[in-house]
Amino acid sequence: MKKPQLVWDIKPVSYILGRDALRLSRKRLEEFNKRIVLVDENTLQFCLPVFEEQMENLRIDGVISINTNVNNKSIDQTIHVWNELAKLGAERDTLLINLGGGVVTDLGGFAAATFKRGISFVNFPTSLLGMVDAAIGGKTGLDFGGLKNQIGLFTNPICVVIDPIFLKTLDQKQLLSGYAELLKCGLIMDIDLWDSLESQRYDKVEEWDSLIVQSARNKVDIVRHDTFEKGLRKILNFGHTVGHAIESYLLNKGLDITHGEAVAAGMICETYISSKLYEFECKRIKEIITTIDHNFPRFNLKKDDIPALMEFLKHDKKNKGGQYRFSLLRRLGKAVHDIEVEDDLIRESIEFYIDHKDCECEED
Amino acid sequence: MKKPQLVWDIKPVSYILGRDALRLSRKRLEEFNKRIVLVDENTLQFCLPVFEEQMENLRIDGVISINTNVNNKSIDQTIHVWNELAKLGAERDTLLINLGGGVVTDLGGFAAATFKRGISFVNFPTSLLGMVDAAIGGKTGLDFGGLKNQIGLFTNPICVVIDPIFLKTLDQKQLLSGYAELLKCGLIMDIDLWDSLESQRYDKVEEWDSLIVQSARNKVDIVRHDTFEKGLRKILNFGHTVGHAIESYLLNKGLDITHGEAVAAGMICETYISSKLYEFECKRIKEIITTIDHNFPRFNLKKDDIPALMEFLKHDKKNKGGQYRFSLLRRLGKAVHDIEVEDDLIRESIEFYIDHKDCECEED
Repeated sequence: MKKPQLVWDIKPVSYILGRDALRLSRKRLEEFNKRIVLVDENTLQFCLPVFEEQMENLRIDGVISINTNVNNKSIDQTIHVWNELAKLGAERDTLLINLGGGVVTDLGGFAAATFKRGISFVNFPTSLLGMVDAAIGGKTGLDFGGLKNQIGLFTNPICVVIDPIFLKTLDQKQLLSGYAELLKCGLIMDIDLWDSLESQRYDKVEEWDSLIVQSARNKVDIVRHDTFEKGLRKILNFGHTVGHAIESYLLNKGLDITHGEAVAAGMICETYISSKLYEFECKRIKEIITTIDHNFPRFNLKKDDIPALMEFLKHDKKNKGGQYRFSLLRRLGKAVHDIEVEDDLIRESIEFYIDHKDCECEED
Repeated sequence: MKKPQLVWDIKPVSYILGRDALRLSRKRLEEFNKRIVLVDENTLQFCLPVFEEQMENLRIDGVISINTNVNNKSIDQTIHVWNELAKLGAERDTLLINLGGGVVTDLGGFAAATFKRGISFVNFPTSLLGMVDAAIGGKTGLDFGGLKNQIGLFTNPICVVIDPIFLKTLDQKQLLSGYAELLKCGLIMDIDLWDSLESQRYDKVEEWDSLIVQSARNKVDIVRHDTFEKGLRKILNFGHTVGHAIESYLLNKGLDITHGEAVAAGMICETYISSKLYEFECKRIKEIITTIDHNFPRFNLKKDDIPALMEFLKHDKKNKGGQYRFSLLRRLGKAVHDIEVEDDLIRESIEFYIDHKDCECEED
């Protein structure tokens, strides 16, 4: 048989960003016959009232709540969502409105995409991390068998609505966790964004709107170019290779740390690695590390922890098909991906972190 | 923000059809680093040896078996497959080989598409129903909450390999079940295919290869034009509206009937409805009904069963968002879809079936 070209064209995702985004999105929600909101116990209490107020008399046909305290993104929670969708009579003309942080948008997206071979959904991220990262890019996923995002899909919402109005519902810890991704975004691709973050403290930021919009737009640009993470999209993993190892190691020890805190630590290590592989202005390295330290206290790691951390890195490597390749900074505002790094240099970077060492390069 | 056109281009599905398809497909399987076969208890025993013999020394890295006797296409079986995939170290360079009938290809496709945000899979249908219908067209699904295919995805295998070699592993009951879809295919879109089936009995067919290839090609043509069942693809539902009601009703009564038997009954009713709505040569109607009757004994339904059957139809309608629209024959070899039919005419068609009535139209 002759080979035809098969193209599935998918409607483009709309992004509605910035102040008043909620109200501007109302028209999109009205197109559906039935609207069901997915929340967790926090967004049910703090965000749903804000949402309802902004949407005025928009009819909501049901609210499904998941519990983020136990079994976060589990198949059991997904089954719960499927059951509730069935009870509420969700059909192809139904819209699922994911109102929450990464857990709600990841799990809600998966549940919607698989219910009756797919109903539409829309993401309203309510956490800073959700606004600048998790809600954008079509990755949905569940944790399974002890591994993060083991089950999931690339599938897009019809719309992502990012309204900073929800920031006021967040506590400082959540805000700080998202701040790491904001810093990362500046470092890997946006020197202007970096300049407005540099030497700031997250709790002194007055103008969130523009920071969020700028950062979200950057992520949108990347995922539009490389939805399936074949290349460019990997630069978003800067800070995450060492960061994930630290996160897994410390969570495993029972410490209550956030993703952002781990990524902040990872970014210090990977900035060090970058500075060893590429020419880098010394003052820039100092600037990066000072800004991170200014926001994120360092973890109390010891040199004795390094072998165990290296094991977590290797385990991660095994889970990724025998490859760990780093995404590093070629210079400030420009990242590269798929870079192989020697184990010795990784160890050295963790020592650098532990010892609070200063940048060793020559003064400019 | 300006709206870009986002197109996800998906590699076209390859179809390898007919005698020797298995051996011809080997090259595609070799492209993967790891190959895992999914079977059920029957195909493990009867089809895997055939597969291995045809593939000679192709390395298989694992076999996962599901049990089709209990909880056929359930989320529990899917979790079992995910667990086994994880144990076998399945990665993005792993291929899942679905070797079985509709249950294996539906469930295996879903499990593969959702494992680590999607690993590749290939369908080797081993039942007649699988070869001419279930394995083609990208519908995957699980039964959930008592409803068929409540959870699922449109997602395509890299390749569908249809080799009639597996027909010899089937018993008569399975062969007959698939035969109904073959008849349907001729009726809705292929008068040549119909002519070679007309007045035949399934157990007297000598030349399966060409029938299967012709029928599979027809389905491929349709799903390429309308993957997401927005229009044309619905003609494949001919016989299935009344057929599903009969299937649910009799299964509910504890009878052990196959999908094909129910569709055969549905096709008699819906041929009757077609003949009332469209001009139809009387000899053609007789020809259709005789050919179906020649293969499928009629169910022992009574007029007292009609109200309950109508309830099942209504239930089905409710599950489909308040719509039941029929796919009917405009003439032999040409179907139309989304046709509204009055309840009275549906009842009349079931009476026609029950009474073994003859065609009432004028002789040509």
